[in-house]
Amino acid sequence: MTEENRGRLLIACPDSTGIVAAVAQFLYRQGANISASDQYSTDAFDGTLFMRIEFHLDQLADKEQSLCADFAPLAEEFQMSWQYAPARRRKRMAIFVSKELHCLQELLWEWQSDQLDADISMVVSNHDDARTLVESFGLPFHHIPVQANDKSSAEAEQLHLLEAHQIDVVVLARYMQILSPTFLERYANRIINIHHSFLPAFIGRNPYGRAYERGVKLIGATAHYVTEDLDEGPIIEQDVTRVDHRYDAHALRIAGRQVERSVLARAVKWHLEDKVIVYENKTIVFA
Amino acid sequence: MTEENRGRLLIACPDSTGIVAAVAQFLYRQGANISASDQYSTDAFDGTLFMRIEFHLDQLADKEQSLCADFAPLAEEFQMSWQYAPARRRKRMAIFVSKELHCLQELLWEWQSDQLDADISMVVSNHDDARTLVESFGLPFHHIPVQANDKSSAEAEQLHLLEAHQIDVVVLARYMQILSPTFLERYANRIINIHHSFLPAFIGRNPYGRAYERGVKLIGATAHYVTEDLDEGPIIEQDVTRVDHRYDAHALRIAGRQVERSVLARAVKWHLEDKVIVYENKTIVFA
Amino acid sequence: MTEENRGRLLIACPDSTGIVAAVAQFLYRQGANISASDQYSTDAFDGTLFMRIEFHLDQLADKEQSLCADFAPLAEEFQMSWQYAPARRRKRMAIFVSKELHCLQELLWEWQSDQLDADISMVVSNHDDARTLVESFGLPFHHIPVQANDKSSAEAEQLHLLEAHQIDVVVLARYMQILSPTFLERYANRIINIHHSFLPAFIGRNPYGRAYERGVKLIGATAHYVTEDLDEGPIIEQDVTRVDHRYDAHALRIAGRQVERSVLARAVKWHLEDKVIVYENKTIVFA
Amino acid sequence: MTEENRGRLLIACPDSTGIVAAVAQFLYRQGANISASDQYSTDAFDGTLFMRIEFHLDQLADKEQSLCADFAPLAEEFQMSWQYAPARRRKRMAIFVSKELHCLQELLWEWQSDQLDADISMVVSNHDDARTLVESFGLPFHHIPVQANDKSSAEAEQLHLLEAHQIDVVVLARYMQILSPTFLERYANRIINIHHSFLPAFIGRNPYGRAYERGVKLIGATAHYVTEDLDEGPIIEQDVTRVDHRYDAHALRIAGRQVERSVLARAVKWHLEDKVIVYENKTIVFA
Repeated sequence: MTEENRGRLLIACPDSTGIVAAVAQFLYRQGANISASDQYSTDAFDGTLFMRIEFHLDQLADKEQSLCADFAPLAEEFQMSWQYAPARRRKRMAIFVSKELHCLQELLWEWQSDQLDADISMVVSNHDDARTLVESFGLPFHHIPVQANDKSSAEAEQLHLLEAHQIDVVVLARYMQILSPTFLERYANRIINIHHSFLPAFIGRNPYGRAYERGVKLIGATAHYVTEDLDEGPIIEQDVTRVDHRYDAHALRIAGRQVERSVLARAVKWHLEDKVIVYENKTIVFA
Repeated sequence: MTEENRGRLLIACPDSTGIVAAVAQFLYRQGANISASDQYSTDAFDGTLFMRIEFHLDQLADKEQSLCADFAPLAEEFQMSWQYAPARRRKRMAIFVSKELHCLQELLWEWQSDQLDADISMVVSNHDDARTLVESFGLPFHHIPVQANDKSSAEAEQLHLLEAHQIDVVVLARYMQILSPTFLERYANRIINIHHSFLPAFIGRNPYGRAYERGVKLIGATAHYVTEDLDEGPIIEQDVTRVDHRYDAHALRIAGRQVERSVLARAVKWHLEDKVIVYENKTIVFA
Repeated sequence: MTEENRGRLLIACPDSTGIVAAVAQFLYRQGANISASDQYSTDAFDGTLFMRIEFHLDQLADKEQSLCADFAPLAEEFQMSWQYAPARRRKRMAIFVSKELHCLQELLWEWQSDQLDADISMVVSNHDDARTLVESFGLPFHHIPVQANDKSSAEAEQLHLLEAHQIDVVVLARYMQILSPTFLERYANRIINIHHSFLPAFIGRNPYGRAYERGVKLIGATAHYVTEDLDEGPIIEQDVTRVDHRYDAHALRIAGRQVERSVLARAVKWHLEDKVIVYENKTIVFA
Repeated sequence: MTEENRGRLLIACPDSTGIVAAVAQFLYRQGANISASDQYSTDAFDGTLFMRIEFHLDQLADKEQSLCADFAPLAEEFQMSWQYAPARRRKRMAIFVSKELHCLQELLWEWQSDQLDADISMVVSNHDDARTLVESFGLPFHHIPVQANDKSSAEAEQLHLLEAHQIDVVVLARYMQILSPTFLERYANRIINIHHSFLPAFIGRNPYGRAYERGVKLIGATAHYVTEDLDEGPIIEQDVTRVDHRYDAHALRIAGRQVERSVLARAVKWHLEDKVIVYENKTIVFA
């Protein structure tokens, strides 16, 4: 059994009797073996049902086109919004950074040790600081400065790159710039940001400074999909770490790095393995 | 949709193509709606598959006998070991304690606030310390002293009680006596113990004393099913809490109480909700 | 060495060379042995220094009056705000509750097992729900209803009780009423509240409902001293617990109970042991 | 106030009245300002007292020789074992690795971002795998193969290197070789190892394989000073991470990396900042 022949179905639809049977039966008739399935219903009889099914099917590459075609009528019958993702097709990822490199570093290392099931097509930054690190991993680095008075030309250049490389997912690994609605819409639910606080605490700028002012006893980080409402997008993962009165804003920032990088790495990993479904500004994570 | 009509199937069988479809199809034909399903295979093609399915079926009480009868041939075809449990039938629980009452207390509170889906039929102890507490909850308390030179008569009395009340699950909430093989066999995979260490560290007596000697920086607790090999049974849940050099053995014991009671409460809860499958001295927990 | 002869000094003053030496020398000359000392300076040369010193002195009760008198000139020299607390004098505590009793229960139990170094003088509630529980511990329960249109008469009655019993500390163990500025001023830095969120997230009403809406992956609780700015007082302790998409607002509330009661119990314990210094809306906790 | 003029005293001695006063008075007379002090006594009147004092003294470099000379009689009077460490003198560190590089990588990053207060003088390995990584940080890498039948020649070479570079501390960052008693004695309490389990669970080889066999629900890591008794040395730091039935031995190994590297990094950091005192196979950590 290889990755080669592993496929994944993500499904969201109105809950009703017989859906699981119908999908399982469909896959069985196609000759597929279900190796993992997760299911969650918001409310058993008139709510929404979410499913993630992982299956194996010999010669999947040859069969997947007809499999999807055959699945379409079933999907329509149950009013599914659905997505098929073959495991062998690694997602193409772009990482955006600014000057703080710890999150980038974590992602590169996880990628190098085969923990991130993606091709990193490029790293993009508004500064040149990350170049040496990125190039030491043999990856392309693009320095695209952002002018405060003309962000659109930088974005145009970024979008051009992303499209030229058929990027599937963009990771903002402490990229401190706000993206335009146009950009966000183009990659809806495919841009993952790490916010350096336990959202919704300390939305916006300088969360560590404000955490210090408030005297909190834990600091956190939040990975979320980016939407137009700043720091309000669907949360994928969060975690915290303990601090005390001896931590000033700088010490909080240092302590926060650990939790930022592990939270972002987990969120990215789940996204790459098609374990996240977005529904009404929340996520269902079948981790 | 009420608990009244909720049923659960726990299944373990050799993995093969079509099992999920067969089970889902079966339930669909019975008119049941699958509200939750979990699945785990040790290895996709020739391993063991574990499933937990929760479903709703109108008038379940009337239909469950025929449902089980109809399921039997399917179960045989796929060589399943399986178990059907209707949610409306609360398990009958006996709690055994000795002199330390914090775990008992936690279970009683959780039960009182409807967090433990069980009937507590009795509390049994070799000491009388717990009587006031237990009776303040309106529950029967049985003081059965255990003589060091004749444990069997106490066990006989305990077993008599358990059988008279048709007990489904026995919780050893810091009950410091060793049970005989006969007793254990009678309630195999239905006796849950809390061990006051992060097993397999500090197997046996006085784990906090030995944790102090070793100078560990975390102490833990382990809830497990009891087997003849002391402290070696299948682990259901574990957790730890941080300590430091200022904790002597007594302080460790106090700190450990918090983690003991929360670990035991979680394990008992999962058992009561049929979320635990035991397989070869390990547990699959669909929490 | 008994609690009888243990004293504690809490000190805050402008930092300058020689303070530690002066205090240590003072205690030495009094014949005291320092058994624990903690110290923290906001900035080494012109900041504020905080100290907590625990010492033993034979026949402390007889000597403490002169010890304090002798310390006064030293305190003045270094511009200290300071506080002396003999360990033998257990603080007199009042607990205020409403209808949810888990935090109260935790405190009563900790107190019963000698983990809270206080006398619980009374439990006060605007409802009668807690009466049975409180009286089962042999403690006085006062039911003081609060009328929405006349809160002041209830407060008058509460203040009268607190004063009649010389209460040192008030714990709001899920007491859902807002206290007046007069009340707060009377017990400044001596009223501890548990807020059922990870402040500053979800300030105000219904934090679990809002946590559900936001789709957070952790929920938390915050123990803090109460000030006029609702949920803005100095934080003593916080903690979180992991949740996922399957938790609705009710399930979040249940999960949150565990973290609420442990956070509140820790904060109260530290306060009772004179381990907390409040400084500019923050706490220094020498835990 | 700079690192330049910051000094640290670590003291262990029989507890008796007046020690804190004597030390504080001594430092005051030298013109030093105590910026942090920690103290712990095993038992207040006849136990052992441990102190860590951090102070500032103008022109410390010029004065420290006489300061130490002046301190000696006091130390003798109170039977102290003590150690003076100026913060400006960064410890010289050697890191030993084998083939798994995640712990090395973490230390290099922490060092690069100024979180490890040390000079990394060299990385030594019995394999060549780490060379590229180490040299990319501009650090010397020494490949010293270890022959199963003649470990002593490799050790001789290692010791020669360590002495030639006046190494203060050796970190075994997943170095899978056992060191000889001679080597250990030479660097007693100055060799830090990371063991990939929550000691004392899974002492010895293949802890993840055995953790899988046992079915534990948490896996851990332990940083400790190395002694002749394998995996039995004084524990500096431990932590755990949650796993479940889906983790096979390989997945446990991957999950364990996160906790291994953070535990080792914390332990090394504390050692470098003179925050650890070893006493009878335990550590007092003034973190």
